[in-house]
Amino acid sequence: LDYQHVQVPFEITLWIMLASLAKIGFHLYNKLPSVVPESCLLIFVGLIMGGIIYGLNDKSPPVMDSDIFFLYLLPPIVLDAGYFMPSRPFFENIGTILLYAVVGTIWNVFGIGFSLYGICQVKAFHLQDVSLLHNLLFGSLIAAVDPVAVLAVFEEIHVNEKLHILVFGESLLNDAVTVVLYKLFRSFCEMPAIKSVDVFAGVGKFFVVGLGGVLVGLIFGLTAAFTTRFTKDIRVIEPLFVFLYSYLSYLTAEMFHLSGIVAIIACAMGMKRYVEANISLKSHTTVKYFMKMWSSVSDTLIFIFLGVSTIGENHEWNWPYICFTVIFCLIWRALGVLVLTFFVNRFHVNTITSKDQFIIAYGGLRGAICFSLVFLLPDFHRKKLFIAATTVVILFTVFIQGMTIRPLVDLLAVKRKRESAPTVGEQIHIRFLDHLLAGIEDISGHWGQYYWKDKLEYFNSKYLQKILLREYDQPKSSIVLLYEKLERKHAIELAEAGQLGRAPSHPSLLRSGFLCSNNRTVITDKKLEDTLNPDVLENIQEILARNLYRIRRTGPAYNRHTLPGETEPVEHAKEILILRHKSL
Amino acid sequence: LDYQHVQVPFEITLWIMLASLAKIGFHLYNKLPSVVPESCLLIFVGLIMGGIIYGLNDKSPPVMDSDIFFLYLLPPIVLDAGYFMPSRPFFENIGTILLYAVVGTIWNVFGIGFSLYGICQVKAFHLQDVSLLHNLLFGSLIAAVDPVAVLAVFEEIHVNEKLHILVFGESLLNDAVTVVLYKLFRSFCEMPAIKSVDVFAGVGKFFVVGLGGVLVGLIFGLTAAFTTRFTKDIRVIEPLFVFLYSYLSYLTAEMFHLSGIVAIIACAMGMKRYVEANISLKSHTTVKYFMKMWSSVSDTLIFIFLGVSTIGENHEWNWPYICFTVIFCLIWRALGVLVLTFFVNRFHVNTITSKDQFIIAYGGLRGAICFSLVFLLPDFHRKKLFIAATTVVILFTVFIQGMTIRPLVDLLAVKRKRESAPTVGEQIHIRFLDHLLAGIEDISGHWGQYYWKDKLEYFNSKYLQKILLREYDQPKSSIVLLYEKLERKHAIELAEAGQLGRAPSHPSLLRSGFLCSNNRTVITDKKLEDTLNPDVLENIQEILARNLYRIRRTGPAYNRHTLPGETEPVEHAKEILILRHKSL
Repeated sequence: LDYQHVQVPFEITLWIMLASLAKIGFHLYNKLPSVVPESCLLIFVGLIMGGIIYGLNDKSPPVMDSDIFFLYLLPPIVLDAGYFMPSRPFFENIGTILLYAVVGTIWNVFGIGFSLYGICQVKAFHLQDVSLLHNLLFGSLIAAVDPVAVLAVFEEIHVNEKLHILVFGESLLNDAVTVVLYKLFRSFCEMPAIKSVDVFAGVGKFFVVGLGGVLVGLIFGLTAAFTTRFTKDIRVIEPLFVFLYSYLSYLTAEMFHLSGIVAIIACAMGMKRYVEANISLKSHTTVKYFMKMWSSVSDTLIFIFLGVSTIGENHEWNWPYICFTVIFCLIWRALGVLVLTFFVNRFHVNTITSKDQFIIAYGGLRGAICFSLVFLLPDFHRKKLFIAATTVVILFTVFIQGMTIRPLVDLLAVKRKRESAPTVGEQIHIRFLDHLLAGIEDISGHWGQYYWKDKLEYFNSKYLQKILLREYDQPKSSIVLLYEKLERKHAIELAEAGQLGRAPSHPSLLRSGFLCSNNRTVITDKKLEDTLNPDVLENIQEILARNLYRIRRTGPAYNRHTLPGETEPVEHAKEILILRHKSL
Repeated sequence: LDYQHVQVPFEITLWIMLASLAKIGFHLYNKLPSVVPESCLLIFVGLIMGGIIYGLNDKSPPVMDSDIFFLYLLPPIVLDAGYFMPSRPFFENIGTILLYAVVGTIWNVFGIGFSLYGICQVKAFHLQDVSLLHNLLFGSLIAAVDPVAVLAVFEEIHVNEKLHILVFGESLLNDAVTVVLYKLFRSFCEMPAIKSVDVFAGVGKFFVVGLGGVLVGLIFGLTAAFTTRFTKDIRVIEPLFVFLYSYLSYLTAEMFHLSGIVAIIACAMGMKRYVEANISLKSHTTVKYFMKMWSSVSDTLIFIFLGVSTIGENHEWNWPYICFTVIFCLIWRALGVLVLTFFVNRFHVNTITSKDQFIIAYGGLRGAICFSLVFLLPDFHRKKLFIAATTVVILFTVFIQGMTIRPLVDLLAVKRKRESAPTVGEQIHIRFLDHLLAGIEDISGHWGQYYWKDKLEYFNSKYLQKILLREYDQPKSSIVLLYEKLERKHAIELAEAGQLGRAPSHPSLLRSGFLCSNNRTVITDKKLEDTLNPDVLENIQEILARNLYRIRRTGPAYNRHTLPGETEPVEHAKEILILRHKSL
């Protein structure tokens, strides 16, 4: 038996396997996930595992390594979050999100830090040796809302899109603030005296860390898009570039002490549009699938490790300090949300309702980032107290808040997420309104959101697309793409029902309501179609059909690096199609 | 700048990036890959990289770590090979493959070892201090044909299936022999005296290492199949299990000193059939894609590292020894193939032609496995000579043989791979003949290949499928599946041409030859269809259509772990389809 030789990969594989099996286990009983969030169950599994390890070895189980967390577990989750980020609501609310993320986090850090310092002055608690700086340092790591925990809980409760993006966006973008404040207070703790110039330098760092992260991310994102222009002959490695470049952006940002989370999100959002257009459909399925898979496994591992690391003798149980930490976390977050929303609502037409405010405040979950940061603290005599307080705050927020938020959302009747995708009609109207508003903004001289969006879109189609897309000369309207997709789906549906040979003509299908129910997105278009004459419809269809003829890409005959399905004699099929067109 | 913190993942990512970019670079110029095999180009890139590192640092560049190679780079390639292994030709030729792999490799080891020992006795060469055991040890590592190198070259030259599987199968299965002989001679080198019992124990080990590997692989493979029965509600982690279980089988086998390569191949071949039936179509695309991607990147990295490791001062250039190594490798392999094929041909109807024999002998490429093994040798004063000889043999086989094998295949007019897939008619006939032959074998009392295949198939459908498949009660004939696939493809084709609305009826399409050229697999069926009456065809089609109605699987409403496309209101669509059926 030669265990040492294979130990590292073997144990990693076993941990991932445990995580995956735990996930399957929960989903076998349909009732369980609907009551308890998965994150709680996973922490629970971790607690049991930790208990077993503690019982067997009679020493504390290994805590989650901060390096492993920040270098390997966090990036997949953030990448997934950035790649599937709904960009429209995100950019519509970017101002509010930034306010919560920057001002809100700073408010929480100082609020929690100072009030805990106040608690430390009470002699009965035996905490006089915890200095103000240490309290602020602790505040800086406990204040930040955790994207992993937020994602795990909010994806199960389906609140409306705006509410979701406000909490989730804040949890992602506060990383820049957390990084700066945490490092600032840490270096202050080690300095003999603090000069005022250091404080100003700290303020300047906010911008460097945040904007630097965005810059690094965009550079890597656009490079990734550019690279995928040249992968036509070697489709199988396309998905790799998406992962490699985004990971590099994260690592590069971390290397320069910038915000890695911000970088990877900028990278993912920047590349998505171009990469999707360049790579093949199968590659894209693989990218999406693997991203989901990886982030899913990562967050399972994080919660299990959280549970495992909780067990042991790393804690100093000074209950007053711990309890007041929990209370202050709740109070300052609630106050912060109230005050900030007051200002936000004064400048917006779509105000944030008081129900939404409550959920934003209540959804401020803490998670593995705090946990990793507290272990990264330099050794000092009260570190174990901070670890204990952090652990309790995380468990409190994930268990108590995480489990009660769903009933509360039901109770308050918070506006839910819209279940259906926007219809074609709605999409057209939204785009029309965007152009209209951009025009109004331009005329009125008010350079708002729509003006910039319009400019960016112009810049994109004029320069970026030409550089980054392989076939930039054939831009397709998203409506035409949607039509193609529906047609393909409909065709598959027919083929599976075995009705292709005797398919009734398209307009008659429309009349019988078949196509309309074929896909949710067209259901509400039925009215539109009812008002149209079948002949007119057929005419439209013919025009679309002629423009939709798409020449498939050709591939090499046979290659190690291509999958079987991709290598068809396309040229041949093309000719036949053209001939058939003529004969009809 | 904090480089050390991110060094490990950063450098790994950069190496993978370099490998991927190199791959893209080659494929940009279409002419290059058709003349020079990719493996040669990659080694060349590695040589340049090594030269740069050597020039900059003024010391030898780091050699490829054997642990990294065996634990991380080799498994993806072998997994890919095992998963996409054509099982029919493999099992049809399993006897011949095993003969080449076991007897052939032993023959080569002792042939090369003893003749090199003979060379060492020539005083002019100054090699008298290399003992017989050391020569045999060297023989054991240099004799084995390398699957990575063989795969890289043979996938580009498209020889016929039997020839391909003979060389490739041998290169995979000789791992068990190599492991045993290498470890045996290594331990003999360190022993003061060798007893005859040790030699016998070595012979016994062959079976333990080989069959143990198969057993470990099958256990993990069937467990993987069983696990995927329960992933219905959580599709995104399905692909993970395929990778985790196969990797675990490899690591477990290595841990017990069994053949990891054999284990992972047994695992992949054992699970494939059941996993494919259990997981969703998208998961399967992801599995296939990622396997290809990973193996592609791994083999790129291996060849680049091979090049990098060649540069430096690890070599002792004793040219007589090196040249004779190359010559003996060629001679003994040629002799071995001739002798073994002579026996094989006496017992088979389908004999191996002399052209095929030449290609088998000439295709005996050496690669990274030899290279890693030679670095794993215990330190002794002639290790650098062995490293030099191994390097030269690898470069000689990959460059000279790898580049000339394609022109030779053309020159000799070796039977090529059939370009088209078997037609439906052929598939039916093959299956019919299988059953017939199994029956004949059963009656005649000759328990041959067909008898066992039939028994295995019976065992599979009677027991294994019930345990391992989620929906074992609805087994579909492969012909029905093929029909479904063709129909779906045809439908997409029509939809893309925008002709769905006015699609001519199916039989008329058949007559106009459209469907026939739609897909290669049905081209030769045209004759069959021409002889059938259109009415008969329509009748057949209707029967098939009725049986083909497939109820799609339902998914939960919305979930973090599912992709958007999977959550359609299927129930709704189903009802409509059924209604439509009735109305028609």
